[in-house]
Amino acid sequence: MSPAKLTRVAFQGERGAFSEQAAVELLGEHITPVPRPTFEALFAAINDGAADLILAPIENALAGSVHRSYDLLLESNLTIVGEVVIPIVMNLIGALGAHFENVRSVESHPVALAQCERFFAKNPHIRRVVAEDTAGSVSNVVRAADPSRAAIAGLRAADVYGGELLREHLEDDRANFTRFLLLSPDAKIPRGANKLSLVMRLAHQPGSLQAALEPFAKRKINLLRIESRPIPGHPWEYRFYLDLAASTEDAKVKNALDELRKFGHEVRVLGCYVAAQTPGLESSK
Amino acid sequence: MSPAKLTRVAFQGERGAFSEQAAVELLGEHITPVPRPTFEALFAAINDGAADLILAPIENALAGSVHRSYDLLLESNLTIVGEVVIPIVMNLIGALGAHFENVRSVESHPVALAQCERFFAKNPHIRRVVAEDTAGSVSNVVRAADPSRAAIAGLRAADVYGGELLREHLEDDRANFTRFLLLSPDAKIPRGANKLSLVMRLAHQPGSLQAALEPFAKRKINLLRIESRPIPGHPWEYRFYLDLAASTEDAKVKNALDELRKFGHEVRVLGCYVAAQTPGLESSK
Repeated sequence: MSPAKLTRVAFQGERGAFSEQAAVELLGEHITPVPRPTFEALFAAINDGAADLILAPIENALAGSVHRSYDLLLESNLTIVGEVVIPIVMNLIGALGAHFENVRSVESHPVALAQCERFFAKNPHIRRVVAEDTAGSVSNVVRAADPSRAAIAGLRAADVYGGELLREHLEDDRANFTRFLLLSPDAKIPRGANKLSLVMRLAHQPGSLQAALEPFAKRKINLLRIESRPIPGHPWEYRFYLDLAASTEDAKVKNALDELRKFGHEVRVLGCYVAAQTPGLESSK
Repeated sequence: MSPAKLTRVAFQGERGAFSEQAAVELLGEHITPVPRPTFEALFAAINDGAADLILAPIENALAGSVHRSYDLLLESNLTIVGEVVIPIVMNLIGALGAHFENVRSVESHPVALAQCERFFAKNPHIRRVVAEDTAGSVSNVVRAADPSRAAIAGLRAADVYGGELLREHLEDDRANFTRFLLLSPDAKIPRGANKLSLVMRLAHQPGSLQAALEPFAKRKINLLRIESRPIPGHPWEYRFYLDLAASTEDAKVKNALDELRKFGHEVRVLGCYVAAQTPGLESSK
């Protein structure tokens, strides 16, 4: 029996990174993970023939430059076909057979280390060691097989590299999430799509945003998120990124988009997809 | 002659960090820089009696969690009294007397290293070494007095630690800026204030944002920036952060705010201050 061809999903980071965890959460275990070192390499992965889909972080501190994701998405011909939100849970991971009592140094990306201040305050005998990334630190610790070393990373890294989970939830703030967008060269709208992302370019005049929101407001289409970004080289013009509770297959949404365009607004639909649940957002502080 | 008491300005990071550079850019050399290791320590600096003013990053990838700045600003009684935008220029800095030809390793924060991909591609004989932060790397390199080591940081770090500037503009993308807000316990509006920041809490109903923008739109008050953030624990409510080209001393702005409040919207003015110029934004790509 020949192996089934698995969907190849590119993400930014090492094998076992939070991004890989997000890909598995959204698409299941039966994917071929395609790690990419930079955002540029990530967005080139489909053109390079290395991947079928791209998963790009779009909202969060830990994931780094999210604006870069938006910029590269705009430059591409890709469409948003899905999204996933994962909690950023920091775990202490050692080599196989390691015990917490023997750990003397902990390595990770400095942003991850900084999100575990309380853990280091409570364990002053443990030295902090900065490293290039979270999952890569687990790889190094497991390979060294040194029981005095451990790494901070997502749970997926322990699975991928065969590390020992020593402590869970080292993060100071449990309400830390990263949102990822699934991007495809194929613009097919998934069944059950209920969220629409678009970008509008508006002249910098009083009331222009208010006017551009009206076609949605008067049709009772709910706005989920809005963000403005200045357009480099065009000092008084802005791009507005909107997420709406809507599907382009709904006639009133089509009418709203037509109306916007009739008024001369430049509108680009970035994708229509199934909205993700934000785990625990309702109950967290 | 007794020395004049200088204004103490707290910022997040080491002495010589980009934040210190921003403080000097905004307030001049005659300040006492108060470095703080974390955002929490930064926002506590005035209550602790260690600082008179706080300079907090509010927009950019490099500066880390900007959402954290907003959250801590909301929890505080501080008011925005100024802003400054600085370009993030990456410099190669060595120990005194160092030469570029002898450099074999370059250390810095991984985010800074990642923004200089082209430099490392062009100089494959130079090893990348991750470190806790940019300015601290310069301090280490200068103290070690090892001509084979250099660091990537802002120019200010070379001044503060007495390093040798070996190369300028290592960053891949020149259009990288960080915006900082100057925060004060004293809500006095500065002369010439032309920018207003506020936060509104809106119910998640279709058209609620559009309705909340109307008091500004109909008075021809220009919107400079907008960003929505979900309110943790209140699943369908959002905070909208707005920057407007306006002064609260202008009667029409007062009327717009009164009108908003009359409709039951929760509005908090975060500050009214002199807008910063974004250097080079007009001409950059």
